[in-house]
This record gives sequence, C-alpha cells and structure tokens, in this order.
Amino acid sequence: MDYKILGKDTSPEALKALTPKDRDELCLELRDKILETVSQRGGHLGSNLGVVELTVALLTVFDYRKDNIVFDVGHQSYSYKLLTGRFDRFDTLRQKGGISGFPRINESPYDSFDTGHSSTSISAALGMARARDLDKKDNYVVAVIGDGAMTGGLSYEALNDAGHSKTKMIIILNDNEMSIDKNVGGFSRYLSGVRISSGYISAKHTTESFLKKLGIVGRFFIKVILAIKDFLRFILYRKKPSMFEDLGLNYYGPVDGHNTEDLIKALEAVKDINHPVLIHIVTKKGKGYAPAENNPADYHGVGPFDLSKGVVKTGKGSYTSAFAGALMDIAASNLKVVAVTAAMSQGTGLDSFSMKFPTRFFDCGIAEGHCVTMAGGLAVKGYVPVVAIYSSFLQRAYDEMITDVCFMNLHVVFAIDRAGFVGPDGHTHHGLIDLSYLNSMVNMTVFAPRDYKDLRNCLDYAINKCEGPVAVRYPRGSSPFESAGPLYENAEDCIKPHIAQDYGTDFAIISIGKMCSEADFATSALKSKGIKGRHINLACVKPLPKKELDEQLKGIKKVFTLEEGIISGGVGEAIIRALGTISCDYDVTAFAVKDTLIKASSPEDQLKTAGIDGESIRDKIECILMQKNV
Amino acid sequence: MDYKILGKDTSPEALKALTPKDRDELCLELRDKILETVSQRGGHLGSNLGVVELTVALLTVFDYRKDNIVFDVGHQSYSYKLLTGRFDRFDTLRQKGGISGFPRINESPYDSFDTGHSSTSISAALGMARARDLDKKDNYVVAVIGDGAMTGGLSYEALNDAGHSKTKMIIILNDNEMSIDKNVGGFSRYLSGVRISSGYISAKHTTESFLKKLGIVGRFFIKVILAIKDFLRFILYRKKPSMFEDLGLNYYGPVDGHNTEDLIKALEAVKDINHPVLIHIVTKKGKGYAPAENNPADYHGVGPFDLSKGVVKTGKGSYTSAFAGALMDIAASNLKVVAVTAAMSQGTGLDSFSMKFPTRFFDCGIAEGHCVTMAGGLAVKGYVPVVAIYSSFLQRAYDEMITDVCFMNLHVVFAIDRAGFVGPDGHTHHGLIDLSYLNSMVNMTVFAPRDYKDLRNCLDYAINKCEGPVAVRYPRGSSPFESAGPLYENAEDCIKPHIAQDYGTDFAIISIGKMCSEADFATSALKSKGIKGRHINLACVKPLPKKELDEQLKGIKKVFTLEEGIISGGVGEAIIRALGTISCDYDVTAFAVKDTLIKASSPEDQLKTAGIDGESIRDKIECILMQKNV
Repeated sequence: MDYKILGKDTSPEALKALTPKDRDELCLELRDKILETVSQRGGHLGSNLGVVELTVALLTVFDYRKDNIVFDVGHQSYSYKLLTGRFDRFDTLRQKGGISGFPRINESPYDSFDTGHSSTSISAALGMARARDLDKKDNYVVAVIGDGAMTGGLSYEALNDAGHSKTKMIIILNDNEMSIDKNVGGFSRYLSGVRISSGYISAKHTTESFLKKLGIVGRFFIKVILAIKDFLRFILYRKKPSMFEDLGLNYYGPVDGHNTEDLIKALEAVKDINHPVLIHIVTKKGKGYAPAENNPADYHGVGPFDLSKGVVKTGKGSYTSAFAGALMDIAASNLKVVAVTAAMSQGTGLDSFSMKFPTRFFDCGIAEGHCVTMAGGLAVKGYVPVVAIYSSFLQRAYDEMITDVCFMNLHVVFAIDRAGFVGPDGHTHHGLIDLSYLNSMVNMTVFAPRDYKDLRNCLDYAINKCEGPVAVRYPRGSSPFESAGPLYENAEDCIKPHIAQDYGTDFAIISIGKMCSEADFATSALKSKGIKGRHINLACVKPLPKKELDEQLKGIKKVFTLEEGIISGGVGEAIIRALGTISCDYDVTAFAVKDTLIKASSPEDQLKTAGIDGESIRDKIECILMQKNV
Repeated sequence: MDYKILGKDTSPEALKALTPKDRDELCLELRDKILETVSQRGGHLGSNLGVVELTVALLTVFDYRKDNIVFDVGHQSYSYKLLTGRFDRFDTLRQKGGISGFPRINESPYDSFDTGHSSTSISAALGMARARDLDKKDNYVVAVIGDGAMTGGLSYEALNDAGHSKTKMIIILNDNEMSIDKNVGGFSRYLSGVRISSGYISAKHTTESFLKKLGIVGRFFIKVILAIKDFLRFILYRKKPSMFEDLGLNYYGPVDGHNTEDLIKALEAVKDINHPVLIHIVTKKGKGYAPAENNPADYHGVGPFDLSKGVVKTGKGSYTSAFAGALMDIAASNLKVVAVTAAMSQGTGLDSFSMKFPTRFFDCGIAEGHCVTMAGGLAVKGYVPVVAIYSSFLQRAYDEMITDVCFMNLHVVFAIDRAGFVGPDGHTHHGLIDLSYLNSMVNMTVFAPRDYKDLRNCLDYAINKCEGPVAVRYPRGSSPFESAGPLYENAEDCIKPHIAQDYGTDFAIISIGKMCSEADFATSALKSKGIKGRHINLACVKPLPKKELDEQLKGIKKVFTLEEGIISGGVGEAIIRALGTISCDYDVTAFAVKDTLIKASSPEDQLKTAGIDGESIRDKIECILMQKNV
C-alpha cells in the first residue's frame, strides 16, 4: 500500500516538521501497516497498536539519531522500527533473516538496547544516562515501560537507584492495565486509583481555562511566567505526591496516551528537567482494531490471521494444554496441589485451572523470583505448588530456585513451558539453558517428557511420587507423537530410559524428550544405509538412570546424545561423565546447541541451524562412524 | 555465665508471663550472651544487637510453636535462637556441627524458613499465610525485613502481591539505615523523610495525652471505644498514606524499635487485622555496644575479637584487596572503567575506589539484577563497567547477565568475589555454582586466577584486552601463594595454561585457580610414592585453551581436573568433553564438588568434606592409577 507519510522521509527533521493533522494521518498509516504485516506474519499486535501515538510523539520531540529510547520487553517497537529506517524491510518481520520483533542493536543503530524480557528498561536507560553524564553530553534518554513490567522487581530496583541519582532521564509508564493477562497486585490497584481520582491532564484545556480566568493583566503576567519552564510544568502536569515521588522521581500524569498533541506537550515540558521524571500515560491495548481492543489477551501474540474475521482459536493439541489438562486431573484428587504463575495464566494454560480451583491458584504478577520463593513458603507448610513459567523467564528465578527451594529440599514442581527453540520470537525467548541450570541444582529431579502421555505421567510422578524439587520441561507447540503409540505402558516407568528403536549395535543414540522424533529419523535413515543402531529415549534426566542406561547400551561403544539445549552443563555432558565412571570403553559424543543466539525462524529451521535436526545428526553420526572428521 | 532469665524456661508461656522489668533484664542478658559468643566465635554482631527488643516483643506476643517468624537474610536471628531452645548449644555458633548463623529448618522446628540471601522473607511469609488460609487455621505469620533488604526487587514483588492478597500477615520493616554499608537509593531517602516528619509513636504517651484531653465523660466514652480494636489502632498507629499504603498494605509507624513495651503494644494492636500490615520500626545496628554503634559497617560480620579493644583490622592481604588495588591502578589509566556494586562497597574492596573516583562509582543497593542491567546500559555506551558482587549473590542476576549483557556481547567485567567455599556462613553463601553458570553463558570469557599477581593480570586482560563479557572469579581470604613466585612472567600469558610441576607422565592434574595449592600437595605427595605426574594450572577456563592443553598433556593418558565448584557443568565436565573431541585416548576424571549443601566450618575443612583437598585427591588418584575402585 502506498502511504502519504509512512515510507517517505522519516528523518527526525521531517517528523518534527509534521503538522498535527499529518501526525494523525501517520498514526492511521502506522496502524494500517502493523495490522497488515502482523495479520500476514504473526507477531505482537495489541501492544504495538497501543503505542502508535506515543511513538509518533517521542519521535517528534526527540532525535532518534542521538537520543536513546529503550522499549521495555520490546514487543511494542514496531512503530518505532517503521519510522527509523525499516519500513521497506518490514514485511520480513520475525522471518528468517528479517526484522526482529524486538529491538536489536545489531539490526539498527537506532535501537538502543536489546530487550525481550520484562522490566529491564529503566536499568538500561539509567546506565545510558550515567554514561551520557560522564561524557558531559546532553542527549535524552527515555525508558518506555508498561504497568505490567512495572510489577517486576527489577524495575523497582532501578526506580530506587534512579530516584537517588539526580540524572536527567524520562520514564514513560504506559498504563494499559494489562501485561499479557490482566494485571494483578497492589501496584495495579494503585494505578487504577490514580486514574480514577485524577482524570486526564489535557495541556490545551488546562492552559486555556487557566488563562481565561486571569483577565487581561493576568494573561500578560502569565505569558511572561510561561517562559519559565518550571512554572509551566507545575501548572500543567504536576500532581499530588505519589509512590513514585516517595522514591524520589518527579511524577506527571496521567496523560491520554492516544492524544499525540498532549503527549508532545508533556514531553516538551519535562524533557530538560535535570532529574528523573516519570510520565504516566494511559493507553488501550489493541487501539484501533476492535477485536483486539475487546479481547486483548487473545491479541497479545498472534499467528497469521484474517483481519476481517479476527483470530480463530484452533482446537489443536499442544504440550501446554496437555500440561493444563493433566494438572487439573491431578489437582482434583490431590488437594494439596496449588498452582502459581507469573502473569501468564493463559500462556501456561492455567486459566482453566484458575476457574476450576480459584482459591488454589496464585497469579503473582511479572515476578518470577517472588513466585518461586512464595511457592517455597507454601511448600514448607505442606502444599505442593506447581510453578508454571516459561523456560527463558524462569531464568529470573535462578537464585530463588536454589536458595529458597532446593537447599531446603522443598517439594515444589516447576512446570517449564517453551523449553527448546521457540521460533519467531528469537534468541531472547529460547528455552535452551534450563537443562543446564537444573542439572547444577542440588536435590533437583528433572523430567523432559517426549509426548503428551509422557508429560502426564511425568507430572503425576513429580507431584505424587517425588520428594523435593522437581522440574518438568516441555516444548512450545504440538507433539510429533500424537498418532504414535506410547514407549511404555506402566505410568511409573516414566523415570526409566526406553528403547525406541533397536536395529543393532553399531551405535546408540540417547534422545532427550521430544528430540526422540529427530533421533527416530536419523536411526531409520542410517539403518537404510546399513548402519544399524539402537535408539533410547530418556525423560528423567536427573538423576540419570546410569544402571539402566549401561544395560541398554550393552555391546555398544559409540554413543550419541541428543538434546534441545545448550551443550555446556547439559544432559549430554552429564552422560559423558556418568558413562565415563562406568567404563573407559564408551565413546560418547554430545549433540546439543552450541550457540544460544539463534535468531527468529521456525523451530524446525532453528534445529537445523543448530545442527541437531534428524538429517544433520544422521550425517554427523555416519561421518564419525566412518572415522572421518566432522 | 549464669543468667536470671536466659537459659531458664523460655517457653512461650514463660515469655508471655515476664514483667516489663524482666523483659528489660532479658534484653541485657541476650546482648551479653551475643557479645560473648560472637567475640569468641565470630559472626554477625551489629544486626543481632539491633533486634534484641524486637525479638523479645515478638516472642511475647506470638507463640513460636505455631506462629511463623521469617527473618530476612537471617543474620539477625541469634536472640530468636537463644530463646527457642538453642541457648545450651549456642557456643557452637558457626562451628562445624554447631548452630548455624542463619535460620535452618533442619536445626529447629521453630525456624520457619532457611534464609541467607536478601529480600526473601515477605515472599516466604506470604506463601505460609496462604497455606494457613487454605488450611483454615488462624496462626500468625510475620516477616522481619531490614530497610536494606527492602531495596531488593524481590521484596517489592512480594509487597505488590501481598497488598492485593487480603491475607493476614505482618511485615516488620526494621529500619536501621544500613544494609552492610550505608543504604542508598530513593527508598532510603523516603524512609528517612518519614522518620524526620513523624517522630516516634509511643503507645503509652499517645493514649495518656489523648485521654487527658477528654475529661471524665470523654474518658468513659473512650474506654468503651477502646474495646474496638480498629479504632484503637487508628488512634495509636495509623499515619498518613505512604508508598506502602499505595501498594495496598496498612502502614503503622514509626515505632521505637528499642522500646520493648511499645513494640508489644503495636504488635498486639495489629495482629488480628485480616489484611497485610507493615509496621515500621527504627533500630540502631550494634545497639548496646559502643564500638559497633559507632562503626556499624566494621561490626557487620566479624571474626573473633577482644571485647574490650574492639575489632582490630589486620593488614593481611586478601584476594579482595588485591582486586581493589589492581582495579584502581587500571582505572587510573583507562578512563572508561567504572565500578558497580550492590550495597557491598566495603566487602568487595571498592570503598577505596569510590573515594578515589566518586563519579565513576555506582552503589545500586541490594539489587544485583539492576546492577547488571544498568552496567549493560553503561557498556552499550562505551564504558567498561566492573561489577563486583559475591559469587552466591550474583546468582540473583543470572538472567540479566544472559539477556542484558551476554546476548549483546557487551564488555562488562564481573568481579566475582567469595568464589568457592566461604567457611562459617555455610551453604547459602558458598560460591560453588559460578563456574557452571558462567560456562553456559554465550560470549562469556571466564578467569579463575591462582594468586594476587595472576588476579591482577587477569583483571587487566579482562578490561584492556577482552571484548564482550568477562568474569574473573576469586576466593574469600588470603592467597596460599603470597611467598611463591609467579607461574609465568609475561602478564598476557594469563590466558594460557602453565605447567606448575613436572615429574613425569604417569598422570596429569589440571588445577583451576587457587586449587593449584591442593594439586601441588597431591602431585608432590604422589611423587614421593614413586607416582610421577604433571601438574598444569589454568586461569582462563572459558574458552578452554584446548590446543595448549593437548600439547602440555603429551604422553599422558590419565588426566584429573580439580576445581572448587559444582561438578555439573563445571570446568571438569568441559575439559572431559573437549579432550574427548581431540582423542579417545584421554581418560579424564573430574574432581569437583558434588554436594553444594556443605555446612559451616572452615574453608579447609569444607574442601576436605567435599573430598577435593590435597590429601583426598592424592588418595583418589593413587587408587585410580592402581585400578582399584574409588
């Protein structure tokens, strides 16, 4: 589509020269482009539609060539990308080799900081502001953070430091009452109180009505005063002290986040204050596309869809729904089971649990650390908390898992979704390190189930048979084994390794969890070349069933391990060491991910890039067995 | 010493029956016992002297057999331990097999939750309160947290969740203006404002003066009203809304934390409110021992000392001071170097840096995650932040290290102090997982220097030669190599492995960092038995210098690795895998820590318990070489 403004000259000078009418037009065009692209490519919709006016205002007031805007999480940066040189490539969004769905410093000099995980923007911006001060420069630094991300402790740590720093920086609190799910917590209620009690500040309205009251002399007087920025600011925006003021920041707001002109005036008014300021703006997720406005959680992250029909939910199975269904069944008979999530009840499948067992469900906000320690408190009193968090986000609770759960050997079950490659969100969202960090945690038992049935068995075992901390990690998406039969009959055998294929003793592959499908392919393909091996699938990877593995590997020297995780500290390394303590005869090679920076693409393609898809390992095994160099 | 109250019947009933005069006496006795024990055994002094009255008040109001008191960090739990059945064993404090310096659920049924790391208490208490509600019980749950710990984001996440939860729990904010160092940040300034503007609430004074004003009829009236607890509360304690009220908690305070009777009245007044309440009390660290009151930072954690003389600083060298000295020298010539710490300027040795380069020093509060992300912001703008944090506390910033530094390949240097066993603080404080988590981080370079000179070389290399993230990890205490010569001359050779001893090719030991001294012993001891090996020391453990190692191992089949860290994902596993890719002939055994739960003792004894001291590995190597079972 050909636009009037978008895709033409969007230099800072050109953007600053736009008229208010142009800016309204630009906002329409941005929304159109975002809707067109996301409906074709998939991506984050609601968050991006919500900040169109804000982005236009930011780029009107600031100069993206020298000022720094840090987008918290970063899934709201599409308008920014479209206006900072990436319009032409925008249809490659989240595709292999294309534009990332998140800010990436390697993608553009105008992206200030890579984001993807929540609540980092104020910290990063404060670092940049301090660097600017040390350099004695005068550019601006802005953090844009949602009210959901503000519930993360990292943002509070940064506010505390910023409030004391006296450095010039602007924090824009984008209050849309949502993270991915509806926000929870005292902070959310506090913001809602501020919104209700204050109403919006409208710069134009306030100034005009103020001037009107003053009469001619007063108007002359005030025009002189208006030159003094501090006074103007005070009249227009300064409200009563708040929590942010307590922390040492200057608070202004709330401002209507869909009124570009008000936003521009607010930014102009505060930008030169030599102190951290927080502007509270109120926006609507999904603004401008009715289905997204009405059902924001459904339009947070979407696959391709028909704009005229909206997102249609498929009934397709997934590891997530298999987990959710299994947990509800287990919780129905084990009344000690409670569920905990970090602002992800829908993403983890726990929304149905929360409706069925409302008193046994705790959504703690974007606060993974707190989720885990709070679960520790429940567990020490005899409950069995199931903490469902995505693999890459659980990294935030690393220390809490160790000190507040593992050291006390508390029976907390970690349901780790999105383990392995996640596809188009790219490297910040891959769940590739969990096997490694879980392996190093004392007392921790770790399961990586192959399919839905296996997941159900492992979860049941974790909850009803295990003591101490247990992790069950499973991937995004659907199982390649939906039509295949189970590897074992007795549910409790989920802790044992199982022979999936047995053609001979030329080699063995030990596959972890879902990687069973890649190993299946390789084992069959090698068989057709006359290389006959055995394929063992493993769900319980810690403690390793050494004895059983040794038995099942009888007669085999060349062993390969295959996991969808980082090689360092992973299951492969553990197996190499474990088999080494049994016999020097084993020659074990680990196939795993060596580079966690693999970018957006399909999960299948990411496996290939990592060299651990079925074809790659078929070739590598053949090569090694033929004594060639790999 | 024989006490009047302490060491006698301290059942909840007996404690509740004490008169105010008895309680004053008990506080004196507790201080005496704490001073006596800590001056002989070492331990945390200032924090424990500060909460004597609070502990007596808590145990007067609550019943430790069924109520739960969670001490944040836990280094202020000595009075609690003395009054809950551990008086007789208290002189074993922090000794092997003795009483831990922190709450431990395995030590006493009256310890509610293991603590050691900061800011966990509100989360844990909230979990316990929720469990109580699910159980439909009515016991009390109390979190005791310092103002320093309140700067940690985890506590904010918990406040946010608690404020929304409507569950009955009490949070006692113990405001002593200190964490280990003087507190920093907006929150600290906010509390200071509250203290100055309000003055203490004294229950007695307020009630009396209030009653006096009312006259006879009024007094009768108010006595009826006084029966209504909510009103009493309101009159006595409720102050103007604050940041905590914004988050949904009821705030009361400040209360004089050294007035036991006022504390008791405050606790009685609020304990039955069916909502989370926060009582703000003000205490003095080191209360009752003048040297500790005057120099709280020096009396935070102490070794044995003479009570009449106070703590005398030794001029003894340490890895910490070697780091601090080297950093100042490097920073003098490299003006891009800045230093960042998390409320630990003294512990990390950065206090001297902060005085010499005040504008290049950032103390961000107990906020490890924010430290790291903020450093990322500085680095993306061309500065070289050196983030100095203890190994076990850096676990809090695991995700921030990965997503906000490593993924962008930012040049941030992590100075990781207290790596390895730390002695009497026990397992919560050991730095045993860093090598493992650093190994799994993309782009990360890792150094583990052997001695002060090596540390200086590695730090200089990390700052001036490396690109991307670098970690330099070094242990607590002093170097065993102070009088030994260096292993290499050219400073830049710190990245290479060095042969420390070369007696033959029967075996090789690859020692990591300071473990060189244990390997030295074993290699020499084995030589005297006619078993002649080679000992290679390694400081740069990631990336592994595979080629150089392979050369130095020429002619050797049996290889042993030795590190002071967890075996899973550690350097040993990495070497096993790396040498395996070079040749099948290497037979590598990793000596490392298998159990991170090793309790308080001396670091030397902890090495022995872990089986990785010189004697243990001498015996193990002999055994393995003799083909016996280990």
